[in-house]
Amino acid sequence: MTDRTDCEALDRADPLASLRDQFALPEGLIYLDGNSLGVLPRSTAARVATAVEAEWGRDLIRSWNTAGWIDLPLQVGDAIGTLVGARPGELLAADSTSVNLYKVLSCALRLVAASEPGGIRRTVLSERTNFPTDLYIADTLCRELGFRLELVDDPAQIPGRLGVDTAVLMLTQVHYRTGALHDMAALSTAAHAAGALTVWDLAHSAGALPVDLHRDGADFAVGCGYKYLNGGPGAPAFVWARPDHLARLDALDIRQPLAGWIGHAAPFAFTADYRAAPGIRRFQCGTPPVLSMTALAEGVRTLQAAAPLGGMAALREKSLALTGLFLALVDARCGAFGVGTVTPREAAARGSQVSLTVPDGAYAVVQALIERGVIGDFRAGGATPGDPDLMRFGFTPLYTRFVDVWDAVEHLRTVLADGLWRAPRFQARATVT
Amino acid sequence: MTDRTDCEALDRADPLASLRDQFALPEGLIYLDGNSLGVLPRSTAARVATAVEAEWGRDLIRSWNTAGWIDLPLQVGDAIGTLVGARPGELLAADSTSVNLYKVLSCALRLVAASEPGGIRRTVLSERTNFPTDLYIADTLCRELGFRLELVDDPAQIPGRLGVDTAVLMLTQVHYRTGALHDMAALSTAAHAAGALTVWDLAHSAGALPVDLHRDGADFAVGCGYKYLNGGPGAPAFVWARPDHLARLDALDIRQPLAGWIGHAAPFAFTADYRAAPGIRRFQCGTPPVLSMTALAEGVRTLQAAAPLGGMAALREKSLALTGLFLALVDARCGAFGVGTVTPREAAARGSQVSLTVPDGAYAVVQALIERGVIGDFRAGGATPGDPDLMRFGFTPLYTRFVDVWDAVEHLRTVLADGLWRAPRFQARATVT
Repeated sequence: MTDRTDCEALDRADPLASLRDQFALPEGLIYLDGNSLGVLPRSTAARVATAVEAEWGRDLIRSWNTAGWIDLPLQVGDAIGTLVGARPGELLAADSTSVNLYKVLSCALRLVAASEPGGIRRTVLSERTNFPTDLYIADTLCRELGFRLELVDDPAQIPGRLGVDTAVLMLTQVHYRTGALHDMAALSTAAHAAGALTVWDLAHSAGALPVDLHRDGADFAVGCGYKYLNGGPGAPAFVWARPDHLARLDALDIRQPLAGWIGHAAPFAFTADYRAAPGIRRFQCGTPPVLSMTALAEGVRTLQAAAPLGGMAALREKSLALTGLFLALVDARCGAFGVGTVTPREAAARGSQVSLTVPDGAYAVVQALIERGVIGDFRAGGATPGDPDLMRFGFTPLYTRFVDVWDAVEHLRTVLADGLWRAPRFQARATVT
Repeated sequence: MTDRTDCEALDRADPLASLRDQFALPEGLIYLDGNSLGVLPRSTAARVATAVEAEWGRDLIRSWNTAGWIDLPLQVGDAIGTLVGARPGELLAADSTSVNLYKVLSCALRLVAASEPGGIRRTVLSERTNFPTDLYIADTLCRELGFRLELVDDPAQIPGRLGVDTAVLMLTQVHYRTGALHDMAALSTAAHAAGALTVWDLAHSAGALPVDLHRDGADFAVGCGYKYLNGGPGAPAFVWARPDHLARLDALDIRQPLAGWIGHAAPFAFTADYRAAPGIRRFQCGTPPVLSMTALAEGVRTLQAAAPLGGMAALREKSLALTGLFLALVDARCGAFGVGTVTPREAAARGSQVSLTVPDGAYAVVQALIERGVIGDFRAGGATPGDPDLMRFGFTPLYTRFVDVWDAVEHLRTVLADGLWRAPRFQARATVT
């Protein structure tokens, strides 16, 4: 039976332990919410200060060239690309995940429509519990372009629903509520066998586990900069497209819909006619947010620092050890209090978070844990029938220790065993409008 | 005849002179490019550092509530609103100008299409030399929605071209090349008389001169955060819609196309179905870039500091005095060297910048001036027939002095009189791709 001493031993033996030193973690906090907002890297404050004071303040407009601001979206994109199996020049940091999804899904649907004019391939297939913004963006594009959004209640239904009517399979690789991990390779193969394209949202997988977009058959991908990439609140997102699709867009004269001046082939020629930049650069629209982009660059660097230690594969191994330990300890120490889990117990089927249920108490338990310095988060159920209220705990392998797992479970056990979560101050949900 | 002593006297008598102290202007630099990138406010570095270190680093995910991150887009929007005649709650800071234009122009065109199904009102009217991104966005939307982009070569043609076929008049209030200022009230009245809607881009007018969106008949507006609002490189932009149009969008079930989760009526309910937030909040899409948004808030504050001194009206008076002085001094001291001006000499017809021509030398002269510490910028001509190469000089009234105007003209005179711009090092244009 594992105890805290064993966890300390696991930390001492952890070849990735030193990566934690990169982060300005508040003393005494057990932060299990890196799946929502990654921790501040130590280097970021100074780097952002330089961008503000020297690049902007001193060098002003010249910094577009001298500080390389204009190259940041592709530079940061290349760094992210090393984590998700994109080649140099293929991936771009820009805008938000939602906006980027609008760009690539629009292109994917227009490619299908152009290849089958008047055809029956008019369905976007996704999960009913996919992250809502993905569904909203897809629903809008389906309305605009004459497609239909088809949602499955159970991911196991996906292969059976892929068919001659499927234009695009659009999935988030790791589920934001359950932490369930899709098999990108198998599902992409199935989609392609049905003649469909794939659009993958890597919001909860980029930086959390190895992703190989080329190998695993992604056609388009987007992802988030502020979760496992540690880019800071509202950090720019990223966008990727398989290069041969860009060539097809060119051949068919299909534009990405947010065709703005920075994505023009010659932005500083200021011509009245739009001409898409070659490659992924066309997915830029307006001027990039340099300060937020600079912070994102630092965040991505914390993951690149893992490369000599085994990179994403080593981080994945630790992530699974952390989530596996959490699941085992919750079972052993909290099972008596009705705690359930919705996250797959099979390692290959989960991402880097674990989501738990507790009868009637998920919101209050999360609040009680926060008061004790254990930061997870609450996601209300009920948006779709049968969805329970959830307590989410993210285990970012860059900075989470095995003793953190032990201590978090111990706090959870105390909160439940002593009924601390029943205190009135933990019951009133913050009003969200 | 004005001399430098007179300019010093003007600065001493300037009731707005103290506003310059808000800015971290590099010693010895004459910065006349605030129309491209505003100067760093002194307060911004510390404010951004707090956002990075305390809000993100220490308080982490909790700052969405405790630091009010979630409210920033509307808070900053309200502050910008006071500068452009929007009422509280009507204006939102978000995304880039290009992305925001896509949102509002899409809504405007769908409103017209819904009110005249199968009708002939299918033209977007604009200027051929409007800022390219506006034309690209409009062109894409026209293709998508079955409209036609009609471009005039001379703004004087606009009233005569407004007609039963005009759906939307889309203009940038101050021209990015010439600095010419449109009469928003007159053109909006003419557009409305023709049955058209108006979409105004305030990129070069918000913070540069008084704008009154309600009084002057704007239907939709967007603008830029990094020019006269001093929000920093790539700062978030802003978006505004006349409230009755939002009610019409609701009634007609017209979505803004980038309908994302933050613009949902209840973002944290995570429902699968989209329901637009009431009011302008629906024009949010993804998670806002908090660090860049924080810097923008500080930038807008430097303009609000002018309120007790007369606000935008007083800033406009100083701006016209600066540009008027520059025009007069250039005429008197540089006219012999073939310098011409494309900016209107009538005060009411120009914004806060002056653009000059010089035979064959605009690029080199700008480079020679930069080497001497006078920062203006170069905009190549030729994108449309007859457009000359331009030297642009912006006169941000918040931090530009009358002696700066004198000294800039003196440098220009020296560069031209002594032929300094002919040095080989100023000739080779940086490659822009």
